[in-house]
Amino acid sequence: MEAAAAPGRNAPASTASQPSGCGKHNSLERKVYMDYNATTPLEPEVIQAVTEAMWEAWGNPSSPYPAGRKAKDIIKAARESLAKMIGGKPQDIIFTSGGTESNNLVIHSVVKHFHVNQTSKGDTGVHLSPVEGAKPHLITSSVEHDSIRLPLEHLAEEQAADQPLFFLLLSLLNVKMMKMKTFMVIYFHLINTVTFVPVSKASGQVEVDDILAAVRPTTRLVSIMLANNETGVIMPIPEISQHIKALNRERAAAGLPPILVHTDAAQALGKRRVDVEHLGVDFLTIVGHKFYGPRIGALYVRGLGECTLLCPMLFGGGQEQNFRPGTENTPMIAGLGKAAELVTQNWEAYEAHMRDIRDYLEERLEAEFGQKRIHLNSQFPGTERLPNTCNFSIRGPRLQGRMVLAQCQVLMASVGAACHSDHGDQPSPVLLNSGVPFDVARNALRLSVGRSSTRAEVDLVVQDLKQAVAQLEDQA
Amino acid sequence: MEAAAAPGRNAPASTASQPSGCGKHNSLERKVYMDYNATTPLEPEVIQAVTEAMWEAWGNPSSPYPAGRKAKDIIKAARESLAKMIGGKPQDIIFTSGGTESNNLVIHSVVKHFHVNQTSKGDTGVHLSPVEGAKPHLITSSVEHDSIRLPLEHLAEEQAADQPLFFLLLSLLNVKMMKMKTFMVIYFHLINTVTFVPVSKASGQVEVDDILAAVRPTTRLVSIMLANNETGVIMPIPEISQHIKALNRERAAAGLPPILVHTDAAQALGKRRVDVEHLGVDFLTIVGHKFYGPRIGALYVRGLGECTLLCPMLFGGGQEQNFRPGTENTPMIAGLGKAAELVTQNWEAYEAHMRDIRDYLEERLEAEFGQKRIHLNSQFPGTERLPNTCNFSIRGPRLQGRMVLAQCQVLMASVGAACHSDHGDQPSPVLLNSGVPFDVARNALRLSVGRSSTRAEVDLVVQDLKQAVAQLEDQA
Repeated sequence: MEAAAAPGRNAPASTASQPSGCGKHNSLERKVYMDYNATTPLEPEVIQAVTEAMWEAWGNPSSPYPAGRKAKDIIKAARESLAKMIGGKPQDIIFTSGGTESNNLVIHSVVKHFHVNQTSKGDTGVHLSPVEGAKPHLITSSVEHDSIRLPLEHLAEEQAADQPLFFLLLSLLNVKMMKMKTFMVIYFHLINTVTFVPVSKASGQVEVDDILAAVRPTTRLVSIMLANNETGVIMPIPEISQHIKALNRERAAAGLPPILVHTDAAQALGKRRVDVEHLGVDFLTIVGHKFYGPRIGALYVRGLGECTLLCPMLFGGGQEQNFRPGTENTPMIAGLGKAAELVTQNWEAYEAHMRDIRDYLEERLEAEFGQKRIHLNSQFPGTERLPNTCNFSIRGPRLQGRMVLAQCQVLMASVGAACHSDHGDQPSPVLLNSGVPFDVARNALRLSVGRSSTRAEVDLVVQDLKQAVAQLEDQA
Repeated sequence: MEAAAAPGRNAPASTASQPSGCGKHNSLERKVYMDYNATTPLEPEVIQAVTEAMWEAWGNPSSPYPAGRKAKDIIKAARESLAKMIGGKPQDIIFTSGGTESNNLVIHSVVKHFHVNQTSKGDTGVHLSPVEGAKPHLITSSVEHDSIRLPLEHLAEEQAADQPLFFLLLSLLNVKMMKMKTFMVIYFHLINTVTFVPVSKASGQVEVDDILAAVRPTTRLVSIMLANNETGVIMPIPEISQHIKALNRERAAAGLPPILVHTDAAQALGKRRVDVEHLGVDFLTIVGHKFYGPRIGALYVRGLGECTLLCPMLFGGGQEQNFRPGTENTPMIAGLGKAAELVTQNWEAYEAHMRDIRDYLEERLEAEFGQKRIHLNSQFPGTERLPNTCNFSIRGPRLQGRMVLAQCQVLMASVGAACHSDHGDQPSPVLLNSGVPFDVARNALRLSVGRSSTRAEVDLVVQDLKQAVAQLEDQA
């Protein structure tokens, strides 16, 4: 089986015809990886950090003797490195198993904290009323990753099922005759505890006014991704935070608790500047394998345990100040620290390089296929986007994204989020929600370049796409 | 800083004076690691598997192209390797971030499933009555690891707080004048939804009859560790499962749902045979770093999704059949598979070797300190225990475990669970619960040997302990 080219950080553009970096490979079966939004290879320095820690820092970080202390020191250094990358404080970082856990943890914590607060305020614990006040309300966008969308949908279902009104309506409407799912959809619109704010079809971004309009007295969280994984569109997080902060001041005067702001920075880290002060967020999700680090993650929590409470999902041996127990994965944490260090040192160079290659890719696509045939799904006038992401469709009746990719000999890319790779031929909901027409969205391809992608690779890929399209059209 | 000796699998006993295996070390600062119950070094083959996967299988396992498929294949092989180690089916294994997550997930799932069942049975969702039927009841032992004890205590608190009776009692008893904590303890005894079954002071084991006596109509889970981490005592899991199965047949006839049996096999794996058919359990927790594997874990679920439902804690990209989403940690999973393979191949040799060294240690301790001075806290007549664990106290007024360890120059060991290493000078609750007298428990040391521990290391350690004791007694 072919191994993908796992390029090293400084692989020069001219070596594109030879897969740079690591891994055994068969040069006859040349592949070009342009799916860096799905995952990235580990930087050699990261692999080295993980490997060294496996050999030398295998002690239990909770053990007081040298083998444990060494592991503890490594974890401390990694925490500092992560904090530096995002402009936060080390004590505000906790390590998690990955982005999915970080995102779920934020939602869990906010909901839990709401209920604990309700109880501790002398509430009798009997929440019979479905009116506002009984359940927390959360706001997100219609283009979030599944690790935000699905826990929120699950929460909404749970909160609905937990409300007596639900069952009253159920009998009044004689729901047994309706499809349960249809009923749920209607019901959520009536008493939804989660608002999925649509993104603007003009900008691809969620709009601050839409978020503010969705706020209720019970709203506790606004969770909006920093950059979309499919379109690369950058969301206006600083503006959202500023407006929510202003709103929080008014709410405080009215005796209402503040709304917290979370951003999933999975796709942005390593591709542009990410600074928690600039963003103004309370929570930020960090995912190692999107910035050439290992498959673990972290969560930034502003003023962890002081300004911002965090209710743990797991209970155990007290690690991570009890916020995330479990014997620490020292080697992977060491690798995550190294990956963060590389981002801090080099993000501007990474960004510039990726932008150059991505822009060249778009230029070549338009040149080879003609401007009218290529629809750049992620170009919204005036909207910032990730420097590495090119979401485009080649117009034509038989050119669905999946079919084009299947005909490619060289290109490894995707039609959307990797975790949707087996979702059949439906166009990406993210694109549809962003205003891309159905017929265009169906043909979408997401190409995302990396630190060592080269112009020569782009040339190969564009030729590969041309032969794939020709083949599909010949079959017609 | 000294590196601990990280012995290789086949390190011969005669090399004991040189730390075998891996890591840079200063031979002048010789240390002997006897804390293999806290964590184990990674086997060189495991490190190799992790490293190879970092270089060559970094693709997203959900991606359909070769880089993804390769990762998927590695995960499949590791799943098969884990299944083989425990005599289960590959499709019944899910990977988790570690033992803490696996244990919490079992508890979460059982509780969630209970509530979902209540709702789906046409219950109105209004649970005002604190009588049995409204809340699930769970049974565990008084000597479990914190990753079982604490989530269950948390659950009990939550379920109590969620019951209107709680608040009624609160006002009736004028609790504001009492310490809340004291009240909670009283209250839990009244309406506890978790029963902590004590272990026998004669055998150190939980007794089957005590578990059966604790069963209620609402009981849904019995969770008992396979081997205790501090005493090494093996719990009678096969007997418990047999009796619970018999009880389940009676319950089925009465229309009651079955009770599921979970065992946390963290300490047993790699030290003795662990077979889910022999054990008869529904859930089994696997922890890589206790058997020379990486810092991730897994959960065995008998007939996952068919015979046994599993309600996920996390929601996201659909990995692990949606039971545990999040992009898979391929390298660590590869390492876990390799560690499991080594256990399957060699567990009998590991067990025999560890038993030889541990027995020699106990023999030497008694010979050097005198039988009357050494109290072997983990020897219960007729009770099986782990082959590698020696929990003992050196009797004497100033010989508290922590003080003895602090005087040791060579020995790296612990007084109990590593995650309790900063819990001050209180004797281990596990030992007290197992019937070890307070004064003896206070002096306890837990030495646990590994695959490459040697008799020569034992000799060094016993001499080290002798000088430590002499120093402490001189200071008296």
